Amino acid sequence: MPINVLFAAKPERWSTYGPALKRAFDEVGLDVDLRPDFDPAEVDYLVYAPNGSVTDFTPFTRAKAVLNLWAGVEDVVGNTTLHIPLARMVDDGLTEGMVEWVVGHTLRHHLGIDLHIHGQDGQWRAHVPPLARDRKVGILGLGELGRECAYALRELKFDVAGWSRSEKQLNGVKCYHGDAGLRTVLGRSEILILLLPLTGDTRDLLDAKRLALLPEGAVIINPGRGPLIDDAALLDALDSGRIGHATLDVFRVEPLPVDHPFWTHPRVTVTPHIASETRPESASRVIAENIRRGEAGAPFMHLVNRDLGY
Amino acid sequence: MPINVLFAAKPERWSTYGPALKRAFDEVGLDVDLRPDFDPAEVDYLVYAPNGSVTDFTPFTRAKAVLNLWAGVEDVVGNTTLHIPLARMVDDGLTEGMVEWVVGHTLRHHLGIDLHIHGQDGQWRAHVPPLARDRKVGILGLGELGRECAYALRELKFDVAGWSRSEKQLNGVKCYHGDAGLRTVLGRSEILILLLPLTGDTRDLLDAKRLALLPEGAVIINPGRGPLIDDAALLDALDSGRIGHATLDVFRVEPLPVDHPFWTHPRVTVTPHIASETRPESASRVIAENIRRGEAGAPFMHLVNRDLGY
Repeated sequence: MPINVLFAAKPERWSTYGPALKRAFDEVGLDVDLRPDFDPAEVDYLVYAPNGSVTDFTPFTRAKAVLNLWAGVEDVVGNTTLHIPLARMVDDGLTEGMVEWVVGHTLRHHLGIDLHIHGQDGQWRAHVPPLARDRKVGILGLGELGRECAYALRELKFDVAGWSRSEKQLNGVKCYHGDAGLRTVLGRSEILILLLPLTGDTRDLLDAKRLALLPEGAVIINPGRGPLIDDAALLDALDSGRIGHATLDVFRVEPLPVDHPFWTHPRVTVTPHIASETRPESASRVIAENIRRGEAGAPFMHLVNRDLGY
Repeated sequence: MPINVLFAAKPERWSTYGPALKRAFDEVGLDVDLRPDFDPAEVDYLVYAPNGSVTDFTPFTRAKAVLNLWAGVEDVVGNTTLHIPLARMVDDGLTEGMVEWVVGHTLRHHLGIDLHIHGQDGQWRAHVPPLARDRKVGILGLGELGRECAYALRELKFDVAGWSRSEKQLNGVKCYHGDAGLRTVLGRSEILILLLPLTGDTRDLLDAKRLALLPEGAVIINPGRGPLIDDAALLDALDSGRIGHATLDVFRVEPLPVDHPFWTHPRVTVTPHIASETRPESASRVIAENIRRGEAGAPFMHLVNRDLGY
């Protein structure tokens, strides 16, 4: 009896993911019937994207798990019809891409590269930046992505502090948690990186009050989630120069509307949600491994804690 | 009897280096008489910069070593009056600064950051770059600086190849040497980093013929020495688009003259020789340690091989 797997993502993804998933199932020796549509009552697993057509999980009476193709689960975790395990995507490629984007933009701001890109005017401005060991970087969010970015920045000798909701310990990284810890990390971060999940607690986390805690001229890098920042408060802080620059990869509305002030603000760099993209080959291997585990009665990887919301 | 040490660099460096060197001598317990001038016949060691006033070493009849403040020795190594040991500067700060600059600009080109800095026009160009593991980077020169840059890029999973004159082995880096090896590395390098010393063999190494071996659209990053590149040949290759971009930190004449075509070329980024700057505190510790070794009869660190020229 094959395992019935529904591909419940946008139809245009099928041509890429169908073959990649089949290769991955073959690699782990799973006999899978994978289809973009199925009688819900016959489905064993859902390969899922929150922007697909499935929003009611009630008819999936025998399904064992929902395997999310995305790292973000905020659009599915609160679904009251979902009572089976939900796994988020933790893809090596996704983590690597995020580390590259975060380290690249952190070094860009640390070294003042923009000044050289914009200032090719014949003036020899021999200002040497401090060493990374004298540059304080803060990371909000110490999940898989935050942790790997912290380690990569630590390897380059940046003075890295991290903050998470609950207490965590990372080798070589100053770790803080809770409200007092958040104030400490904000107060020291010359470069602040947002890698928090979006929950009720983290929405608008960076509001006017918390932006005011950052050092004068601090840089904000947001590859996490758009609504972590209060856009109006950020624009105010950028206008006054309190915040030196914001490099933003995620937004409340994507694509970012053409008339949004972020596009033209001299202290903002918009990148089009490219920091971390799931790659079909590596993501399909994660899905296949989770189905293999489900069939073997082993615990699923990357399960979402429904109470915490991530 | 104190050890007599002459500070033989530009006089304007004395106010910074004087106190830093004295602190470093104290740290290792050396009794030193450090001065910016001395009767040459009484000098035990020269703390030296090639752009200072000492060019004839003949009168320094009892000196035991010349301790260069710079990593580059091409302006002193060929001095025919120099018969005592010459040590180059290998400063942690200098290496760290170089690694940061090289990794920053490699990631900048890898991620296509310029496109976003220049293209804040409301267009959502969601092109995702390949992962670093699929990006081929080449490093010419595997001394201290080249090696540490290779390791830092390898940590970020770049596909790194290195080339050196004589055979070397670096863990996790594809190493090549000799003429055939140079052709191999040039042929595969989407991003090429120059960290060779300047010698008779390396002058104009990147001429028209060798530039033609690089993949179409390759990026050149030169924090090494200006004369490693034939400027006219590079400009031709940039004009035709054969070479996609050149980010240059060093030049045949510095500061780069205001009318030099590099300043205005759309495919060139000029940075003002900031990739690697000796920091007085850490450099002074290296000097002090070498004098301590000299007095203890131990071998000097970072001795220059006069035949090889570095």
